[in-house]
Amino acid sequence: MEFIYTENVRLYDTDAQGVVHYASYYRFFTDAIDEFRKKVLPGYSLTSDSTSFVTVESHAEYIKPARLDDVLTVKLIPKLVSKKALKFDMRIYKGSEIVCRGYTIQVAIDTRRWKSVEIPKSLLSKMQLE
Amino acid sequence: MEFIYTENVRLYDTDAQGVVHYASYYRFFTDAIDEFRKKVLPGYSLTSDSTSFVTVESHAEYIKPARLDDVLTVKLIPKLVSKKALKFDMRIYKGSEIVCRGYTIQVAIDTRRWKSVEIPKSLLSKMQLE
Amino acid sequence: MEFIYTENVRLYDTDAQGVVHYASYYRFFTDAIDEFRKKVLPGYSLTSDSTSFVTVESHAEYIKPARLDDVLTVKLIPKLVSKKALKFDMRIYKGSEIVCRGYTIQVAIDTRRWKSVEIPKSLLSKMQLE
Amino acid sequence: MEFIYTENVRLYDTDAQGVVHYASYYRFFTDAIDEFRKKVLPGYSLTSDSTSFVTVESHAEYIKPARLDDVLTVKLIPKLVSKKALKFDMRIYKGSEIVCRGYTIQVAIDTRRWKSVEIPKSLLSKMQLE
Repeated sequence: MEFIYTENVRLYDTDAQGVVHYASYYRFFTDAIDEFRKKVLPGYSLTSDSTSFVTVESHAEYIKPARLDDVLTVKLIPKLVSKKALKFDMRIYKGSEIVCRGYTIQVAIDTRRWKSVEIPKSLLSKMQLE
Repeated sequence: MEFIYTENVRLYDTDAQGVVHYASYYRFFTDAIDEFRKKVLPGYSLTSDSTSFVTVESHAEYIKPARLDDVLTVKLIPKLVSKKALKFDMRIYKGSEIVCRGYTIQVAIDTRRWKSVEIPKSLLSKMQLE
Repeated sequence: MEFIYTENVRLYDTDAQGVVHYASYYRFFTDAIDEFRKKVLPGYSLTSDSTSFVTVESHAEYIKPARLDDVLTVKLIPKLVSKKALKFDMRIYKGSEIVCRGYTIQVAIDTRRWKSVEIPKSLLSKMQLE
Repeated sequence: MEFIYTENVRLYDTDAQGVVHYASYYRFFTDAIDEFRKKVLPGYSLTSDSTSFVTVESHAEYIKPARLDDVLTVKLIPKLVSKKALKFDMRIYKGSEIVCRGYTIQVAIDTRRWKSVEIPKSLLSKMQLE
């Protein structure tokens, strides 16, 4: 399964070197994961459901600079890496050229106790990750 | 009472126009208010004390551009504007030149019910605002 | 003329008080102004055209808190306040309830000399502000 | 060589899950690298010197959550990974407990042509990386 999100580079994403600041790519990752979640898990809430997810690892490699007003294509592939952890593989393109690749790993937690738990099967089936 | 905080302009504060992004000045405001609060209200916590504060108004005027690596002087003057509200008047200088002036207004709330309340006298006296 | 933009509240817009951080509303303002600019001035670039715009004033009043996953309606009304300055009046709604109102004022500058200039008539006519 | 920087967790670093947002740790990395640079390369400027540096890779692992008002110790170890690239190994502690580890890799570029170049020996010797 691949999920695609279109991102607009804003002025606040750029820095005085004239290009997108390296940490802003994590904003693009977050936006794509967020839209993926809304699509496959409508009604689910990170803050009020009994199972939440926290990011335990993040990684990005910057291949070409992106600039103000660029319209980027963010491709996300969700993967199950353990009973408790999801990996979101990310590729960001400007037209046909890749500008960034990376990933985040998120672990399921019991929202109240803030302890890792197995990802509920109901969530996995909706994400087609069983 | 005047409180002074020294701020460093970072790469993420700047944008592709080569200067500090307008919204980053609110980061400088927040940092100065935060350090003022730590100094006059040691041990107080916005998230765990029974009285919290929420920003109800923010304003900034940009007079001169600031740039990467600038070291700025943030001057904060706290004022009581009602029994429930504090105003923080802000002036930001680069050397002797003013680069930005503005303010934020914060209202006291009961942290659990998220309703406005009078600012406790114990907090006002520590801020010398009685 | 009124321009409407739909904004998604992301996790990075919120803070530990459980609501949208006050400065993130300026992100919402920026996004709406950016989309307005792309619509009425296609091909125009803040960084490479001979006339740029810089924010000289920003203001926001926070009426109701917004939260993670809220979908907000940002209404923008552009106004000409002098030969050199534009004001963008902003109203942000969650459903039918207003959550924030404010504005930014932007001044036209000669991109190379970084000096204020009159807004070119070609830009004003496209924004219907003559 | 190890460089140590003290960081304050601000309200804007946290999110509605009540902890520091994963991408804010890159703010902490940036601050520490920035202060290291100012100390060992006084007068050097990322935007106006003939050699600049761009981030080509970033990575973070989140071990324990950090929270509002935490005072963090950021430990940075610079390493030369090629004639053109520096790696900054980062460890972030809250008291004696590690909360995050990661790194960034930065490549030297000719500021005007935006092409990778060898890191000038004058910079390497000041960073004690010859």
